[in-house]
Amino acid sequence: MNPEQPGTLYLVPAPLDFGCESPVSLDAVMPSHTLEIAATLKTWVCENAKSTRAYLKRIGELYPLCAPLQAMQMQELPHAVHKKGDHHGQFDAKPLLQAALAGENLGLVSEAGMPAIADPGASVVRAAHDLGIPVTPLVGPVSLVLALAASGLNGQDFAFVGYLPNTPAQRVQRIREIEALALQSGQTQLFIETPYRNVVLLQTLLHTLQNNTRLATASGLTLPQACCHSGLVKSWKHKPWTLDNTIPTVFAIGR
Amino acid sequence: MNPEQPGTLYLVPAPLDFGCESPVSLDAVMPSHTLEIAATLKTWVCENAKSTRAYLKRIGELYPLCAPLQAMQMQELPHAVHKKGDHHGQFDAKPLLQAALAGENLGLVSEAGMPAIADPGASVVRAAHDLGIPVTPLVGPVSLVLALAASGLNGQDFAFVGYLPNTPAQRVQRIREIEALALQSGQTQLFIETPYRNVVLLQTLLHTLQNNTRLATASGLTLPQACCHSGLVKSWKHKPWTLDNTIPTVFAIGR
Repeated sequence: MNPEQPGTLYLVPAPLDFGCESPVSLDAVMPSHTLEIAATLKTWVCENAKSTRAYLKRIGELYPLCAPLQAMQMQELPHAVHKKGDHHGQFDAKPLLQAALAGENLGLVSEAGMPAIADPGASVVRAAHDLGIPVTPLVGPVSLVLALAASGLNGQDFAFVGYLPNTPAQRVQRIREIEALALQSGQTQLFIETPYRNVVLLQTLLHTLQNNTRLATASGLTLPQACCHSGLVKSWKHKPWTLDNTIPTVFAIGR
Repeated sequence: MNPEQPGTLYLVPAPLDFGCESPVSLDAVMPSHTLEIAATLKTWVCENAKSTRAYLKRIGELYPLCAPLQAMQMQELPHAVHKKGDHHGQFDAKPLLQAALAGENLGLVSEAGMPAIADPGASVVRAAHDLGIPVTPLVGPVSLVLALAASGLNGQDFAFVGYLPNTPAQRVQRIREIEALALQSGQTQLFIETPYRNVVLLQTLLHTLQNNTRLATASGLTLPQACCHSGLVKSWKHKPWTLDNTIPTVFAIGR
């Protein structure tokens, strides 16, 4: 470690099987370079130390880790930042990056997919830039992008708008809002829902959207039970559909 | 092949070194599963048959291909659809999917990154859904997502808006438009530029954006010369910056 020169903040993707019963084989969804780099990192910034250790244990089965799991330094993001309903929280993450200022490489990891995408890690990346710490994103699975590609919707102009409101009235209003945007501008609108609400959200979408709006769902991508559907709302209404309520699902609407 | 049952349309990502002098090692940026599946596919839908054969040749050096390159069936997307300035063209791609209807698995590939994201492949995916052909996206590098993660900008509400207009006046107007959207709604705005225009675009951005808007660039991600910058416009103005004009660059603005 050279204190004169800061370490690098590596953005380490995680597989998309978080909380799922059947874990995927890591090397099937991760490039070797991503896992090799991750195995060299001893200090981590994460949402949850326990699940990050579990991920590192899986990496260690493929690539020797630089240190025993117990010796890894785990710094969790402030819970207030990533608790449900506060997904947009920003905070000063500079204190989490001291090791990088001392010349050590750091890893930022989220519970699933790419850190700082649809998760609270962006503040850490921002702090790294402000401190002159180099940032290197590593390749891995990203459910939003896999879902968009699989949707057949416009992938040249799209937006991810996060979660929809919880209260029924506000939710319907928000759905009408983003549908109008998608139909007028042609910009595909992607959003997600918390587990066990997939079916209710889909029902609300089918009741709320116009018949000629295109609706796509992508569930459990990269998992054995992966499943994508895409069609006009009227065709969804006329054929029986199934949607696993328990696995992560991305929804998309467009014209 | 079972004509009763259609084949699967696989969305096969390509590395991000298209047109670059120093190709990356495929297995460093691609999961083994992606390359293994690609090696089993004989029929392809692509933007350019020549570069797709070159990509398959690289895959063949790692995994035995199911057929000689000369025997691969290459179907190019209609040129009108992906010629510059017509990036949003949609077309009826059903004729390209006959092999899948006959029970054969198909590959959709773009010149770089994920097919159907920031490229004209979405019509092919849409046609697959409309024909009842299963669609399976495979994991690989996606410059937009790597750039967003590396930007430190809001990754929980973001939009990719494609290319900015070419004419200076329209371009400045469009930059002001998306800046206003980014500052008001907090939605990060991502866009790209064609090669050899990176520096001119960056100069226009620095002249046009407000001093407290955050601007990020990500160039040549996954390549040896990869480089990310992120900071307030005023800080860009006060320090010397370099931007490789020849490699693919993603731009992002936000608050």
